[in-house]
Amino acid sequence: MNFPSKLIEDAVTEISRLPGIGKKTALRLVLHLLKQNEVNTEALALALTRMRSEIQYCKTCHNISDAEECSICISPRRDASMICVVEDIRDVLAIENTNQFFGKYHVLGGVISPIQGIGPEELKVESLLTRIESGQKDAPINEVILALSATMEGDTTSFYLAKKLKEKGVKVSTIARGIAVGGELEFTDEVTLGRSILTRINYSTT
Amino acid sequence: MNFPSKLIEDAVTEISRLPGIGKKTALRLVLHLLKQNEVNTEALALALTRMRSEIQYCKTCHNISDAEECSICISPRRDASMICVVEDIRDVLAIENTNQFFGKYHVLGGVISPIQGIGPEELKVESLLTRIESGQKDAPINEVILALSATMEGDTTSFYLAKKLKEKGVKVSTIARGIAVGGELEFTDEVTLGRSILTRINYSTT
Repeated sequence: MNFPSKLIEDAVTEISRLPGIGKKTALRLVLHLLKQNEVNTEALALALTRMRSEIQYCKTCHNISDAEECSICISPRRDASMICVVEDIRDVLAIENTNQFFGKYHVLGGVISPIQGIGPEELKVESLLTRIESGQKDAPINEVILALSATMEGDTTSFYLAKKLKEKGVKVSTIARGIAVGGELEFTDEVTLGRSILTRINYSTT
Repeated sequence: MNFPSKLIEDAVTEISRLPGIGKKTALRLVLHLLKQNEVNTEALALALTRMRSEIQYCKTCHNISDAEECSICISPRRDASMICVVEDIRDVLAIENTNQFFGKYHVLGGVISPIQGIGPEELKVESLLTRIESGQKDAPINEVILALSATMEGDTTSFYLAKKLKEKGVKVSTIARGIAVGGELEFTDEVTLGRSILTRINYSTT
């Protein structure tokens, strides 16, 4: 596309660097901003720069935070004996929205992926292990729940973590894989259905 | 969604104000920016603010421009006797990409839409008429091509402009409506097909 203005071209180029946004969408967004009041664009730009420059990561769980420790980590109402290990902040938000987990989190910042060159060193694994070790003295951690994606990378990471965590003598569990609530057996893929039979839950124990 | 950080929340809110971007997509974009280097976010924010504050509109055709007059209007290689009337800058880009039009443009900035409260006064109609009048002295304008969308609003605007322009004694035409190149008759809607028969082109005259 040949833009009549260098300013437009720059803005389109920058916006189209974002994932899932092509040149056409970027141009649509730029034209939308031009129709809006100038303060709207300023507010957007300021929010982005402030977010990027002032953001902090919780020193305990590596979740995104406005302070040194995140609101979940400092909350006295959260059960410190349970840690849920997740891939990134989006998973924290998803689990928080369920209102079913009242422990604390540990954000890995990714999953092990040899293809993308991500090994355990690139993730917050070491910090998780030291967190459990230091926790053993004053506030012992009873259980670590691995809540990673049911992908090859997620499973690899879960397996790796489970091995490391068992060495520390902590109970390790993983979120259940099975058919979705409301899902019909007929339309569930074979692997999921097979797994849900293998990992069936005994009615008498629940 | 309950965000762990006010900064993230602000950024997500601002991004999700953009058309077609919801909270989930906005969060995905924010997390992408956080993974990138800080300079990328700064470049994006700067491009947006500069674009919004420094952009100019061509005083002749109202196209977006970096100077007082746009590159098309000042170009001596463009035919000043033909003016193509379009809705907005995206249409200018689309027509430029066809490499079939070598005249000049006039950007209306919208189409007449009583429902949205947009009348001819909100558009650059008056400026088009004065442009044709003043052009009659030194560089006469022979033809005005109306290239508006084939929607109710677009047709209303075309009809209104055609009436006004004929009073000025200028030839008015509109882009052809018909089946798309490569389109099959079978799958063309009836209205378009019907129109394409009514406005058929005589082979002997072309």
